[in-house]
Amino acid sequence: MDENFRQHISGLKKGTIKLHALESLLTPDDALTVRRSFISEETGVSLEKAGSYSMDVSRACSKNCENMIGAVQIPLGVAGKLKVKGEYAEGEYYLPLATTEGALIASVNRGCKAITRAGGAEVRIFRDGMTRAPVFAAKSVPHANEIVCWIEENTGSLREIAESTTNHGKMKDILCFVVGTSVYVRIEFSTGDAMGMNMVTIASERIAGEVAEKTGAVLVALSGNMCTDKKPAAINAILGRGKTVSAGIFLSDDMIKEIFKTDAATLMEVNTRKNLVGSAKAGAIGFNAHAANVIAAIFLACGQDPAHVVEGANAMTTVDPSEGGVYVSVTLPSLQVGTVGGGTGLDTQRECLSMLGCAGGGETSGSNSSKFAEIIASAVLAGELSLLGALGAGHLARAHKQLGR
Amino acid sequence: MDENFRQHISGLKKGTIKLHALESLLTPDDALTVRRSFISEETGVSLEKAGSYSMDVSRACSKNCENMIGAVQIPLGVAGKLKVKGEYAEGEYYLPLATTEGALIASVNRGCKAITRAGGAEVRIFRDGMTRAPVFAAKSVPHANEIVCWIEENTGSLREIAESTTNHGKMKDILCFVVGTSVYVRIEFSTGDAMGMNMVTIASERIAGEVAEKTGAVLVALSGNMCTDKKPAAINAILGRGKTVSAGIFLSDDMIKEIFKTDAATLMEVNTRKNLVGSAKAGAIGFNAHAANVIAAIFLACGQDPAHVVEGANAMTTVDPSEGGVYVSVTLPSLQVGTVGGGTGLDTQRECLSMLGCAGGGETSGSNSSKFAEIIASAVLAGELSLLGALGAGHLARAHKQLGR
Amino acid sequence: MDENFRQHISGLKKGTIKLHALESLLTPDDALTVRRSFISEETGVSLEKAGSYSMDVSRACSKNCENMIGAVQIPLGVAGKLKVKGEYAEGEYYLPLATTEGALIASVNRGCKAITRAGGAEVRIFRDGMTRAPVFAAKSVPHANEIVCWIEENTGSLREIAESTTNHGKMKDILCFVVGTSVYVRIEFSTGDAMGMNMVTIASERIAGEVAEKTGAVLVALSGNMCTDKKPAAINAILGRGKTVSAGIFLSDDMIKEIFKTDAATLMEVNTRKNLVGSAKAGAIGFNAHAANVIAAIFLACGQDPAHVVEGANAMTTVDPSEGGVYVSVTLPSLQVGTVGGGTGLDTQRECLSMLGCAGGGETSGSNSSKFAEIIASAVLAGELSLLGALGAGHLARAHKQLGR
Amino acid sequence: MDENFRQHISGLKKGTIKLHALESLLTPDDALTVRRSFISEETGVSLEKAGSYSMDVSRACSKNCENMIGAVQIPLGVAGKLKVKGEYAEGEYYLPLATTEGALIASVNRGCKAITRAGGAEVRIFRDGMTRAPVFAAKSVPHANEIVCWIEENTGSLREIAESTTNHGKMKDILCFVVGTSVYVRIEFSTGDAMGMNMVTIASERIAGEVAEKTGAVLVALSGNMCTDKKPAAINAILGRGKTVSAGIFLSDDMIKEIFKTDAATLMEVNTRKNLVGSAKAGAIGFNAHAANVIAAIFLACGQDPAHVVEGANAMTTVDPSEGGVYVSVTLPSLQVGTVGGGTGLDTQRECLSMLGCAGGGETSGSNSSKFAEIIASAVLAGELSLLGALGAGHLARAHKQLGR
Repeated sequence: MDENFRQHISGLKKGTIKLHALESLLTPDDALTVRRSFISEETGVSLEKAGSYSMDVSRACSKNCENMIGAVQIPLGVAGKLKVKGEYAEGEYYLPLATTEGALIASVNRGCKAITRAGGAEVRIFRDGMTRAPVFAAKSVPHANEIVCWIEENTGSLREIAESTTNHGKMKDILCFVVGTSVYVRIEFSTGDAMGMNMVTIASERIAGEVAEKTGAVLVALSGNMCTDKKPAAINAILGRGKTVSAGIFLSDDMIKEIFKTDAATLMEVNTRKNLVGSAKAGAIGFNAHAANVIAAIFLACGQDPAHVVEGANAMTTVDPSEGGVYVSVTLPSLQVGTVGGGTGLDTQRECLSMLGCAGGGETSGSNSSKFAEIIASAVLAGELSLLGALGAGHLARAHKQLGR
Repeated sequence: MDENFRQHISGLKKGTIKLHALESLLTPDDALTVRRSFISEETGVSLEKAGSYSMDVSRACSKNCENMIGAVQIPLGVAGKLKVKGEYAEGEYYLPLATTEGALIASVNRGCKAITRAGGAEVRIFRDGMTRAPVFAAKSVPHANEIVCWIEENTGSLREIAESTTNHGKMKDILCFVVGTSVYVRIEFSTGDAMGMNMVTIASERIAGEVAEKTGAVLVALSGNMCTDKKPAAINAILGRGKTVSAGIFLSDDMIKEIFKTDAATLMEVNTRKNLVGSAKAGAIGFNAHAANVIAAIFLACGQDPAHVVEGANAMTTVDPSEGGVYVSVTLPSLQVGTVGGGTGLDTQRECLSMLGCAGGGETSGSNSSKFAEIIASAVLAGELSLLGALGAGHLARAHKQLGR
Repeated sequence: MDENFRQHISGLKKGTIKLHALESLLTPDDALTVRRSFISEETGVSLEKAGSYSMDVSRACSKNCENMIGAVQIPLGVAGKLKVKGEYAEGEYYLPLATTEGALIASVNRGCKAITRAGGAEVRIFRDGMTRAPVFAAKSVPHANEIVCWIEENTGSLREIAESTTNHGKMKDILCFVVGTSVYVRIEFSTGDAMGMNMVTIASERIAGEVAEKTGAVLVALSGNMCTDKKPAAINAILGRGKTVSAGIFLSDDMIKEIFKTDAATLMEVNTRKNLVGSAKAGAIGFNAHAANVIAAIFLACGQDPAHVVEGANAMTTVDPSEGGVYVSVTLPSLQVGTVGGGTGLDTQRECLSMLGCAGGGETSGSNSSKFAEIIASAVLAGELSLLGALGAGHLARAHKQLGR
Repeated sequence: MDENFRQHISGLKKGTIKLHALESLLTPDDALTVRRSFISEETGVSLEKAGSYSMDVSRACSKNCENMIGAVQIPLGVAGKLKVKGEYAEGEYYLPLATTEGALIASVNRGCKAITRAGGAEVRIFRDGMTRAPVFAAKSVPHANEIVCWIEENTGSLREIAESTTNHGKMKDILCFVVGTSVYVRIEFSTGDAMGMNMVTIASERIAGEVAEKTGAVLVALSGNMCTDKKPAAINAILGRGKTVSAGIFLSDDMIKEIFKTDAATLMEVNTRKNLVGSAKAGAIGFNAHAANVIAAIFLACGQDPAHVVEGANAMTTVDPSEGGVYVSVTLPSLQVGTVGGGTGLDTQRECLSMLGCAGGGETSGSNSSKFAEIIASAVLAGELSLLGALGAGHLARAHKQLGR
């Protein structure tokens, strides 16, 4: 190893160099090499594979990851083609899915086949807005009331302040919630093609400052957990966060039989007893079969924040009886996605977004992230269909015949 | 490109070769090359970076990922050292964290510093058991009652049947829940160092068969969503799933001031108004600041299932007043981890597990996965501390002085 | 017994007279006598006490209760005086409480004493609107989207239709929520001094008819459970239903010691570990000690719907540290009350409402029901204070001293 | 008015006599008269009707109600007969219902008619145990772990201690839950024919004392809200509290048409879109139409605690397709009832319990409260059926025909 490297490693060991300071002393790749060597020596693990990467780390180590030592490789596969009939996504897509769970892609693939043959998933975005909710302390209940009144009377000026911090964001709504002396102000923004957390946080900070100054409210935390970010929460399932998307498909009795080896009554029974009644009894926020699996796999492939899988998991799956078949849908109330910023600029992730035709900013602001959301909802529908079908075919169908139900 | 490859690509285009059939015709690496080339041509995206990987794909493409075309690279950094005082993890650890969210690792690092200087996180595992809950249809309410009675009277023989399917698993409990004619049977297993979903599913299938045969119950779905897998659910927050772990640390007033630039009263106020009251008002299952971030980053680094971040997100963070400082804790009711199986055998992931000294099976069955769980809980504690401190310092502290509270 | 009565009883036994038809054949009191005698003979129970009532049954049997046989008597006591400083309620009140739970009134009384001596409960109403949410079936996801768009574009005309059905009601909001092909339209009304369910239901029926006609949506149920009426639901805890009210009080250290025999730190610890952390761990919608007890007792005394205790129970209680004492609050997000209609016109109930100075319609529409809501919130605060104090004094205080915490 | 009375009233006004002291100076009836007169003069309300009661107040004023001034009269009606086929209730019953909500009894009555004609409600009790959950503070996470281990190792001796406090109660289970330094110990008792809260509380106090002494745990509150009493909570919906009861009935297509003027497909659609999907979207704990209405009306009639309607409201209603009709069920996970103690001994309430043949203690301990619970579940089923039928008939059926679905 290079003598220069050894000196730096030695400095790390003695504590004369801080682990995070290497990028200021070396090129990014060298900084990674030195840090990785140090960690390798400290832990006795080679880290050779983690050190073998093709990404441009100069971006990654400045924007995405501190104390970087390399990269983790997640297997990447494809499912599809999946036909999507949305307002932004129109066409057939190969889905990039990064996963380590065997059988997941095969399962999604079977769902894609059914959807595509049935004419394509019908998708719509019902709501779109990223939120942040600072919490303030009031001196008393009447003071809390004054704060709320002031905010409601000054929405216009707060909007101006908020929008002055961003080129793309528009404030859509500002909602106040009070618990005793705690005032939660949920600020909602449209954030174009970005997932938008940073944008909203910056704008919220300015709003919070103004509220504090004008009302005497004390800002306790820029996020008061009514946003709600990265925790399962009914507020997101009800009011939405990020994009609220539904995808649906009519499947004929013939297709159910041919592709899923089961029938309409069985699909409905599985969905009711598992996704509706079972989830209800479990006290769940999430009435689906395995939406999180599909969301996680696309999120990883496409550079989304994997902690947002939490909110994606609150999806609801329905199976309606319909003349000659069933109408199956999935609704994702809080899908948080972006095609710019975050991990979307990393090399492999950008390739995956490109496969879907939605890397970077859209022709009109927000069109790429909307397209991406429509595709994800359709992919989740494919996953739900396939698992419901498998459960139905494997177990219930035979019994149905036996019991004549 | 190799002529042989072109022929296969041509076959894919004509449909004479199925996309998933390539591994049966070519070596794993060649199969990936052909599939990637085909997708590249279909989508017009180069996929060069995704095609640059160092992992051994023969394992990945057979066990982890169908229709594989390469790998996604996630930036990998480290935080620490973090001192842990558990029953399985004893020592100081560098944490491998795979993330694309700038500032996350820096934040965790600051928490690690505080914990380590304060003597190390005290960690305990309170419960350990993976669950699966098939749902059965009964003919009537009395029939549902008969089914439940039969199961409760035959727990012993059901245990024998279950344990005959596995070398490592032990059935810990079997709980019945009834909603009208739906009977949910939640089966809990200790699963050694494996996360254990497959093990439990196989055992549950055998149990389900026996129950159906002996009681006339109709198996509707092997998972009836009372497991609950990959959906946020109160049942997991209450009864636990996987490992239930708590980590705690006493921080003196001096250390709060020095590391976090704030004080005990402020930390408590932030935690109460944000993590307790704010989450409560949001209808959350998850009373924490950003547990999902830390869990996701370790899970990705160490080959865990990213969809299980959903259940990890139901953590609860507390800050107790204590003589001369505060006692801060985090409790993870449903942390699902393994050190064998799943993505843990992939090259980069195995290196990361090795950094923590818990790759593969432990000396005694379960000791490695328990050690891993203790480290994760401590890391989550570091993340919570750091974010609470930042919120407190940035905003609340000044106001506290102004208002004399 | 009167021969005429015997003939009617005989008719009931033979089935020639229907049980519900008696009021069309006899005076109200006689109808009750005959029906009671019949039931008495059928069941072998005297029902003498149930037949001894002082209420004017002509109103009750036509508006409140079918197949009436008499009245149940619930013990009625008083607590207070309770000093209230609201926007509608200003003064000191004796609280009428109907209960069978020994010690409840004594407990509320102690809370009243503390509040009154501390200067009176500060109360504010943050939101006021009764809701109804019909559910419609759409043909597909795109159709659901069209329905929502139509409603959002036609809010003005829907408001006109809604308000044409009522003299007092004003439509405040109309929110659409979609799950696949189910469209929930949550209509919110201000309803003056009436609790307002009937008013909103009638208006909703008209709106629903219009929506169905114009969009092809199929009305499935006038209440689609997103109202949410008489079921615990996060939507009510978040968005409110009926009146959202908070009451708060500052208690000095001296008063805590004198009245509750405990101290500020203990009150905070009880509230945090019980009402916040305990409720969170239980998966509760309701972070209080016993709000339901106080609400039920006032509701019964004052002719409110006892099934609405369900929504009242989602209250949240907080105890903030404050210079020289604590600030204690309770927030009731969904308190559904009226001073006209329902059971408020019954004799004993009207007397109880009169005790609070809010029987019947207020001077300005809604002022009486608002006053009533403010008094209830203050009474709940009294109950919370008292129970927290008792828990703290009985158990924790001694231990605090022992452990020097 | 009697001169003696005037003197006491005068004493009350001057403050020389405390309001609650009257019973120690006068007979119960006289105490009520004086107190009522005083309140009447203070408030300017006659309270004549509240003062007209037939109950034996000597019992009420000592056991049920402090500061008693009279009684509230709630209209009492009947529905039925309702045929019940349970393990404890076998036969046809007239249901006593105390309510002020017009149309409720008529609605329940229609449901009773359907159930009785269909052969009677099939009812079963799946679980029976009243709970109390003290919360303790531990010094640290490891201390919390020690406390839990000690409890789990000493269940036998804790049972002995618990059962020494009662003649009727048996400890069924003791479950520990930990959140950081808070340890919740949920103690479950079978309580015979009593609702059992007092019994369990007394036993819990003894257990808590022992735990504190032996482990150094600090008892913070005898109820730590994981009981969970009188707050809606997932833990009760999942694990049950009081009695867990299901009732079911098969309705043929003919009967659906004849009694409810609708059809099987419509009933299923209403239940799915309203009770399952609508409740899920609302973040509800409670997947029913109006269970709380029926429970409240029976509870009031029969002397139960009206605040327990909160937990009764978490019922779940299902409608299964079945050969030639539907199977409708309702499941009440946490029905808290007693036939001795509380308000059950009051005169009118005792008459109502007698109408059902379950006043007082049963022949075998618990048989009367079990019978009562079975009847209530059947009555709730009647209410659900009727409302689902009405919703279906009124709105959906016509549309179904129009759309040919």
